[in-house]
Amino acid sequence: MNPYITEEKVFKDPVHKYIYVQDQTIWDLINTKEFQRLRRIRQLGTSYLTFHGAEHSRFSHSLGVYEITRKIISQFERNDYPGWPREEKLLALCAALLHDLGHGPFSHSLEEVFDTHHEEWTCNILLEDTEVNRVLRRVADDFPGKVAGVIQKTYPNPIVISLISSQMDADRMDYLLRDAYFTGVHYGNFDLERILRVLRPVQGKIVVKESGMHAVEHYLMSRYQMYWQIYFHPVTRSSEIILRQIFRRAKELFEQDYKFEWMPGPIKQLLDGTITVKSYLKLDEAYVQAAFLHWEDEEDALLAELCNRFLNRRLYKYITMTNPDDTLLEEISLQFTSIGLNPEYHMEIDFPFDQPYDVYRPDSKKGGKEEKTPILLLDEQDRLSEISAKSDIVRSITGLHQGEYHLYYPEEPLIEAGTKLSPALRELFKL
Amino acid sequence: MNPYITEEKVFKDPVHKYIYVQDQTIWDLINTKEFQRLRRIRQLGTSYLTFHGAEHSRFSHSLGVYEITRKIISQFERNDYPGWPREEKLLALCAALLHDLGHGPFSHSLEEVFDTHHEEWTCNILLEDTEVNRVLRRVADDFPGKVAGVIQKTYPNPIVISLISSQMDADRMDYLLRDAYFTGVHYGNFDLERILRVLRPVQGKIVVKESGMHAVEHYLMSRYQMYWQIYFHPVTRSSEIILRQIFRRAKELFEQDYKFEWMPGPIKQLLDGTITVKSYLKLDEAYVQAAFLHWEDEEDALLAELCNRFLNRRLYKYITMTNPDDTLLEEISLQFTSIGLNPEYHMEIDFPFDQPYDVYRPDSKKGGKEEKTPILLLDEQDRLSEISAKSDIVRSITGLHQGEYHLYYPEEPLIEAGTKLSPALRELFKL
Amino acid sequence: MNPYITEEKVFKDPVHKYIYVQDQTIWDLINTKEFQRLRRIRQLGTSYLTFHGAEHSRFSHSLGVYEITRKIISQFERNDYPGWPREEKLLALCAALLHDLGHGPFSHSLEEVFDTHHEEWTCNILLEDTEVNRVLRRVADDFPGKVAGVIQKTYPNPIVISLISSQMDADRMDYLLRDAYFTGVHYGNFDLERILRVLRPVQGKIVVKESGMHAVEHYLMSRYQMYWQIYFHPVTRSSEIILRQIFRRAKELFEQDYKFEWMPGPIKQLLDGTITVKSYLKLDEAYVQAAFLHWEDEEDALLAELCNRFLNRRLYKYITMTNPDDTLLEEISLQFTSIGLNPEYHMEIDFPFDQPYDVYRPDSKKGGKEEKTPILLLDEQDRLSEISAKSDIVRSITGLHQGEYHLYYPEEPLIEAGTKLSPALRELFKL
Amino acid sequence: MNPYITEEKVFKDPVHKYIYVQDQTIWDLINTKEFQRLRRIRQLGTSYLTFHGAEHSRFSHSLGVYEITRKIISQFERNDYPGWPREEKLLALCAALLHDLGHGPFSHSLEEVFDTHHEEWTCNILLEDTEVNRVLRRVADDFPGKVAGVIQKTYPNPIVISLISSQMDADRMDYLLRDAYFTGVHYGNFDLERILRVLRPVQGKIVVKESGMHAVEHYLMSRYQMYWQIYFHPVTRSSEIILRQIFRRAKELFEQDYKFEWMPGPIKQLLDGTITVKSYLKLDEAYVQAAFLHWEDEEDALLAELCNRFLNRRLYKYITMTNPDDTLLEEISLQFTSIGLNPEYHMEIDFPFDQPYDVYRPDSKKGGKEEKTPILLLDEQDRLSEISAKSDIVRSITGLHQGEYHLYYPEEPLIEAGTKLSPALRELFKL
Repeated sequence: MNPYITEEKVFKDPVHKYIYVQDQTIWDLINTKEFQRLRRIRQLGTSYLTFHGAEHSRFSHSLGVYEITRKIISQFERNDYPGWPREEKLLALCAALLHDLGHGPFSHSLEEVFDTHHEEWTCNILLEDTEVNRVLRRVADDFPGKVAGVIQKTYPNPIVISLISSQMDADRMDYLLRDAYFTGVHYGNFDLERILRVLRPVQGKIVVKESGMHAVEHYLMSRYQMYWQIYFHPVTRSSEIILRQIFRRAKELFEQDYKFEWMPGPIKQLLDGTITVKSYLKLDEAYVQAAFLHWEDEEDALLAELCNRFLNRRLYKYITMTNPDDTLLEEISLQFTSIGLNPEYHMEIDFPFDQPYDVYRPDSKKGGKEEKTPILLLDEQDRLSEISAKSDIVRSITGLHQGEYHLYYPEEPLIEAGTKLSPALRELFKL
Repeated sequence: MNPYITEEKVFKDPVHKYIYVQDQTIWDLINTKEFQRLRRIRQLGTSYLTFHGAEHSRFSHSLGVYEITRKIISQFERNDYPGWPREEKLLALCAALLHDLGHGPFSHSLEEVFDTHHEEWTCNILLEDTEVNRVLRRVADDFPGKVAGVIQKTYPNPIVISLISSQMDADRMDYLLRDAYFTGVHYGNFDLERILRVLRPVQGKIVVKESGMHAVEHYLMSRYQMYWQIYFHPVTRSSEIILRQIFRRAKELFEQDYKFEWMPGPIKQLLDGTITVKSYLKLDEAYVQAAFLHWEDEEDALLAELCNRFLNRRLYKYITMTNPDDTLLEEISLQFTSIGLNPEYHMEIDFPFDQPYDVYRPDSKKGGKEEKTPILLLDEQDRLSEISAKSDIVRSITGLHQGEYHLYYPEEPLIEAGTKLSPALRELFKL
Repeated sequence: MNPYITEEKVFKDPVHKYIYVQDQTIWDLINTKEFQRLRRIRQLGTSYLTFHGAEHSRFSHSLGVYEITRKIISQFERNDYPGWPREEKLLALCAALLHDLGHGPFSHSLEEVFDTHHEEWTCNILLEDTEVNRVLRRVADDFPGKVAGVIQKTYPNPIVISLISSQMDADRMDYLLRDAYFTGVHYGNFDLERILRVLRPVQGKIVVKESGMHAVEHYLMSRYQMYWQIYFHPVTRSSEIILRQIFRRAKELFEQDYKFEWMPGPIKQLLDGTITVKSYLKLDEAYVQAAFLHWEDEEDALLAELCNRFLNRRLYKYITMTNPDDTLLEEISLQFTSIGLNPEYHMEIDFPFDQPYDVYRPDSKKGGKEEKTPILLLDEQDRLSEISAKSDIVRSITGLHQGEYHLYYPEEPLIEAGTKLSPALRELFKL
Repeated sequence: MNPYITEEKVFKDPVHKYIYVQDQTIWDLINTKEFQRLRRIRQLGTSYLTFHGAEHSRFSHSLGVYEITRKIISQFERNDYPGWPREEKLLALCAALLHDLGHGPFSHSLEEVFDTHHEEWTCNILLEDTEVNRVLRRVADDFPGKVAGVIQKTYPNPIVISLISSQMDADRMDYLLRDAYFTGVHYGNFDLERILRVLRPVQGKIVVKESGMHAVEHYLMSRYQMYWQIYFHPVTRSSEIILRQIFRRAKELFEQDYKFEWMPGPIKQLLDGTITVKSYLKLDEAYVQAAFLHWEDEEDALLAELCNRFLNRRLYKYITMTNPDDTLLEEISLQFTSIGLNPEYHMEIDFPFDQPYDVYRPDSKKGGKEEKTPILLLDEQDRLSEISAKSDIVRSITGLHQGEYHLYYPEEPLIEAGTKLSPALRELFKL
């Protein structure tokens, strides 16, 4: 079998202009049903409710991660850098393309409620009887396992892992550029071409020539701004809270043997914890939204209300608080109950900075898989040093965080309640 | 009621940078469930299967049409042009925002099979008991009817109609820019700011100052290129064909009393022709795709195959022919049947230039509502003339068309059939 | 000598993002004084008086032509196309970089008056005792001659010539993009990356894969628009006319033994036709403008006036005429003389379409060196055909021209003359 | 006199797309010879020797500052903010347009050597008998004085001053965007449209609505990066050093009664300190470069060498040092002298961070006119607070600086000297 396509294939991409496919394996992977399914999973979850342009899918992001990886490797090969193991090229490209394969609909909310992990699903899809698995096995019998190993960060050759999982990997570089493009918030633009030119494969790591330090500073600043302005946007958080509560309520009802008007197989399996790969692959965002469209008419008023809120963008409002005060929260909870609200569903405190907040931390030693290789600079004497040792600006943003928290709640019933609420609460909620 | 919002609202938009909302009515319309539903209808139908960036919705396009209309009117007001009837501003803005409200999922294919028309649905939604209707009635009792009149082109003041329906209207200007942005095909860029500056309201029409002729030429060239490269792209046509056949097959089966595994109310009503506004509003693309995800497992092999093709992007291939030859088509049909294909579903001839091809035609006198006001230039002596009388380049592209047609078919069964097909056919299909 | 630079050098360029230098010879050429001089010659002559952003120099354009050439060749080498003679790479790069080396200040106007030709000066600089010549001779003794041969189109290997001189060469592709960028008139943008990907070296020519036809159409449309909107802009023509008249007047005065207050060596040699390469190299736009700053105070009123007009942008106005009518022109000339104007300097007829108008003409058989290779498409059967045979749109713009002409004149004296001019003339000049 | 132009005039601008002129006074000012002269003064001095795109002039920057000011005021007027004094509009626009009128050729270097100040020249040009003065006096007799007052920051209405002179004024906003555009270094892009929308005139200051804080953070980060990557670029510093030495050497020679081959009036007056406004206006960059082209052939070897270095970009190299050590500098000086160099001209220490380094400093209390109004945020309760009190990120970059210094020197004589230099020096200079 000729591993190369005679005439390279091209996808028009608004972020990278073109995406080039040269290997038959990559082409075949893109055409599998499991990869095509990513067209029905949005890259940014519910962010489109805040930034209406953010309707792009994980399909386009996955192609982008592949393309950046291809460009990095192509630069390494063109310059014949000894630190790059040429035989790992196809593996790295496949892992880049497939790293998000297991994402479910609105993954973050789904995972919190059902305790599933998209990385695990990715590996299941790679290793079980799927079209993707069949394409990979045509390369070698142990190839699906190798790809899974790279994604799980257990593959013995660390440089392959660091391409798609480090503080400045192809995944992150693509999503910052792509999310900036589709939201229209141009804070996320950085000079990709410059960064690609200064990457070097050294001692099992991808490092950066010191002359490129300014470009890296700019990348880190862009990332910082994107986190606070897109990823942690309070309106997006509100929609994620609603979504999580839909899932929670459905689970709760299911466990109480509530009789759903609409309950197809895959969702039932999700609720009772017996879901298979085949069913999981049905569970795209179209499917889940169709469920919400049905549940909007369910008898359970809470589930119906939450679905209505999500579909029609009737999100919870929020107030900002600087100190969590248990007495106050208790009081709010009591008064909410007194006007017919359910505090378990109708009030939620959100600490954005407790999220896996992705400020650059050189010494992140959390243990566990969240830890990412720091960014290393390579000087002219081939010495490596961690970037915050050299850059004032990186040092200055390292560890920054914003301490406030938000209390989310439905505004309409509070307005209706009027003087049933205490003056203190009415002031707090600006009624 | 104060018709203005105290602090104007802003949407971040990648095409226009920001979209500004200053009227309470516009704000309320955007927040209706009928308008929010447009987030679940893609602007370009199945084009995302060809250009993966084209995942943007009619929601963002509708905001864009509103914004361009707002900018045109604001320029007219700032300059106090006597030709602009100031009292029509809110009407024009509402019509711009709502003109696509009645679009169903993958409208063009749906409409061909079920003989529905999105303009009619738009008017139904405006006039029946909906949230949109309630917001509009707050302006005046006859206001919903006026908005419907503008969209149906029956409103007595033609200048209001021409803002959203003419050869260079806000609708078209937004979609060319937006589709160019999201596909990444930059042929569609033209100088919007320049065009906005040279529009003038004269004698019930929006005309163009002659000094802006070059900008208009560029706009028409952009449009020409976008049609041939995006809107008529043969791969997109292929996916539309598949989609239409899914709808046709479902209808056929339904009429044969086939027992569907999955057949929810709104779709059943669509099939038996009894669909109401309430049900129609459920019918977004998420809902229809969820149907396809179920139908992929239907017993009817043809329906299952077509859904599988659509969801997993296994599209029909095509060959290009310059002359439709009945004998040849007959022969193909016969041989297709002989290898177990169904010519009614497995071969389809497509003449892109028979489409409502949107080349600029100054004298289009088709009668009927497709006809659009031509582009008029206003010279320094306030005389009007149709643009192709002055522009060599517009004249040169007027009436251009490409005469070839495409025959679409599934490739896999032909490959499998091998020598069961005649040598002539095998050559024709390059097997 | 190692012909490659150990670490490639990079120039930041707003059009191509980066310009990459990999050969020591290219690096050394850029650092010669003759090449650095191009920083003091504007790319677009007097266009900056119409489009204030157009202040970019031939230095940046020359780097751009080099970079596009480098990219084309790099694509040919990466794909190992047999039609590309690898041994010609350095020659092609040098010719691309140096093709504009002989441009003088405001070349077009200068050349018309003094009958010099920048191509000849380029060859003189390449072949005489200059820094450029020394760098080229380090490659081989006959290398300067080869570079000159490519630029003069006498080099025996035609594919090398066609890289920098054909209907879609690196020169033209760079200037359209660059002039669009610096003027801010984005009509000139086309999809360079796409075009670079579809170029193929075949039979001594650079041809285009047929699948790239639309990108070529777009390129030709961009070119068409740039010509009419930038290059032939009537205000720019006016400034060129003034400039030419300054040169004419200086020559005339010199021939009449007028005693100039300021007349340095190089300009004197230019006027008496004895100019050497060494002096020519002094003659940049700074030098010529300094001359005008002195001549503004010359005793000769006409020269002083023309310099004042040029420096302070007091350009001639123009009226548009559709038919040159000798009787009318005679009459204008008489009346101009009667109010103290000099028709030889104060009226000038301009036919922009008599310029070397660069519409694409497939069959241009003018003989002479202006003729450029047409654009050829390569189909899947490796057959070549001229693009206008396949593209409706190219055919439609081929041969388009605009027939009107302009009469340029100084407006102030006409206003002052008042009724001394006949009513007919006053109407003609809208006084 | 009608103060408004009947049909507004438009300049195409690559940064702001269009620049709109609506007042006859502005139009007349642009057409004065003093304003047109700014076309011959580069915005970024010698930066074009580092970033070849940076060839744009103060003419285009001045139009840009005018346009941003116009947009800010137009927003204030549209919203009828009581804090904006409508009667000051024309004054503010004129001051914005003319604030750079007095810049000489390569101002910074020129001013250091000749102790002139462009602000003073601006005022001289405004107040003496010039075309600009005549246009301004047509508004009112005291109008030129008012414009000068705004530029000198003595005008009694501080809000007018703060438009063109504060930590986030129209001047700075234009140059960051413009310099980013022309160099191609996109670090300088920030969201101008967003910032314009959140500015408010309050208590004699232009302040920022708190909701716009992120946009301001981004602006300050852009500024930070532009300073370190463009404005303080070591290669640009090298060219400025050469330039300063040319001026110093010319002055020194002049004071020694050296007989120059070429010494025209305006330069002579500059050297002997008798320069008038009329002569100063001749002194553009074309004029000065023409002087260098002559001086390249002067008998004084040092002056000739320096001019050659500047014109042909043979700049000094530099080494980086972290601690200025007098003994070492003494030693370098001695050895330089011993090989025929002149330490006064051939070595120069540069501390970029001693420059008027423009990091944002909220509490800059330097006294003197360099001090700029800090950026104030306006919260929903109409309270003002300085931005670094609210923004972690602004606080983190406030006061950052980089402590190293550079030693500039000519490399060629050191290479030639070979072992005549001590081993320590040879190591220091990496010979």
